[in-house]
Amino acid sequence: MKVVVLLVAIIVGAYQCHGSEHGANFQVFPLRMKTGLGGHYIPEVSCKSWRLGVEAHNVIDWKSIPEECVGYIGNYLLGDQYRSDSKTVCREAYLYAKTLNITAKDIWVFDIDETTLSNLEYYADHGFGVEPYNETAFNEWVNLGEAPALPESLKLYNKLVGLGVKIVFLTGRPLNQETVTTANLKHAGYHTWLKLIVKNTTLYSGTTAVTYKSAERKKLEEEGYNIIGNIGDQWSDLLGTNTGNRTFKLPDPMYYIS
Amino acid sequence: MKVVVLLVAIIVGAYQCHGSEHGANFQVFPLRMKTGLGGHYIPEVSCKSWRLGVEAHNVIDWKSIPEECVGYIGNYLLGDQYRSDSKTVCREAYLYAKTLNITAKDIWVFDIDETTLSNLEYYADHGFGVEPYNETAFNEWVNLGEAPALPESLKLYNKLVGLGVKIVFLTGRPLNQETVTTANLKHAGYHTWLKLIVKNTTLYSGTTAVTYKSAERKKLEEEGYNIIGNIGDQWSDLLGTNTGNRTFKLPDPMYYIS
Repeated sequence: MKVVVLLVAIIVGAYQCHGSEHGANFQVFPLRMKTGLGGHYIPEVSCKSWRLGVEAHNVIDWKSIPEECVGYIGNYLLGDQYRSDSKTVCREAYLYAKTLNITAKDIWVFDIDETTLSNLEYYADHGFGVEPYNETAFNEWVNLGEAPALPESLKLYNKLVGLGVKIVFLTGRPLNQETVTTANLKHAGYHTWLKLIVKNTTLYSGTTAVTYKSAERKKLEEEGYNIIGNIGDQWSDLLGTNTGNRTFKLPDPMYYIS
Repeated sequence: MKVVVLLVAIIVGAYQCHGSEHGANFQVFPLRMKTGLGGHYIPEVSCKSWRLGVEAHNVIDWKSIPEECVGYIGNYLLGDQYRSDSKTVCREAYLYAKTLNITAKDIWVFDIDETTLSNLEYYADHGFGVEPYNETAFNEWVNLGEAPALPESLKLYNKLVGLGVKIVFLTGRPLNQETVTTANLKHAGYHTWLKLIVKNTTLYSGTTAVTYKSAERKKLEEEGYNIIGNIGDQWSDLLGTNTGNRTFKLPDPMYYIS
């Protein structure tokens, strides 16, 4: 673990030092602006504002993280703050759930990537979101089936299961990744669930994640289930229709899915 | 200005030093928790997570800020980050607006308190949200009519007016504050608007801000207006019905209105 962190720290350092040389290869977000009363430019302040803007759904439809924020985002993800931010969300979710009288039809919807399972090891090797999405490379990583649980999410999952809430995983991963995803979930510590819904890419060809996930949640409600909670790292997990009685947005400054 | 900042810094310091002695007087948010891989408690990390949770609508229905975060929140509001965070939101709003073909029926809805006008001077004297809301004291402040513009919001307002967008102010302030609010808006630099909608507290007695603001936005749409944008510091400005084509959440870690 320490070796991984050290390697990643070196990668972050390399990006910080050489990012501008490779700038032409990246889609650059026009972040540079003067901040503060003095009107001076402070990258960390701007990168923090960008991340907050992403989490509060003000900054949308972005293709990659701002190049000058690679170091900031890498440090955030590998440091205490990402874990603490996730913990706060999961804690609020549990405090809410435990006030409810759970019935046999009550379900909680979990997204998978960056909600249930962490792909941080992959993204640490790919600039924490500064590189354009590489479907081939990402699928190779997914097919290893080695993504660890996000620890705060796993705790929430266990507490919800303990309360008698049924779990539904709803992911944009395609049908051909269903087997490896099932194995990965079990390997990561998620031992039981009502359904794992993967994306039928023929049926949902050309639709957004909002449309696909709304349609699948609608089916769940038509089957008589009551979505008491819905947690995801993307706003597209939480917007649209049939969103659930309460939604929870986990942090994710690495990518945006509409 | 420097004297005010100095005074406020002293107040923040006083809260940091003596907050725990007065703890019994405050409604305390149960924030204390271990964070990070080491499992140690770091107040600033937790307070940052709390603020992010508020902005992403995960932490809701809170009555006052966590007592241990008074110093953190005070420093945030008086430092560069609050201004930068506001700037990022307003910048996204303008980048969106300038892509549109504006018509005579296009309007942009602005909330007033902590969106258009800043009450930071008042809240700096009242613990930045750690004290329970004091309606009498706050109304005394409002009735002075001296609240300054939030500078990034005023810039956005001017740019939207320049694009030909009509402005509607929609506020929870009551009818008896309409005159002073009109004067305050003009004094702060907001020189023109289509409507200033204040709350008819008889008509909307006992309703939430979400209900009141949704109903008033519905009336605007029934009058033929098209709400191209909607900006506020509270999620209750942005949720409900008739929310507008796009919404923008300005930061506000001081209070929560449902």
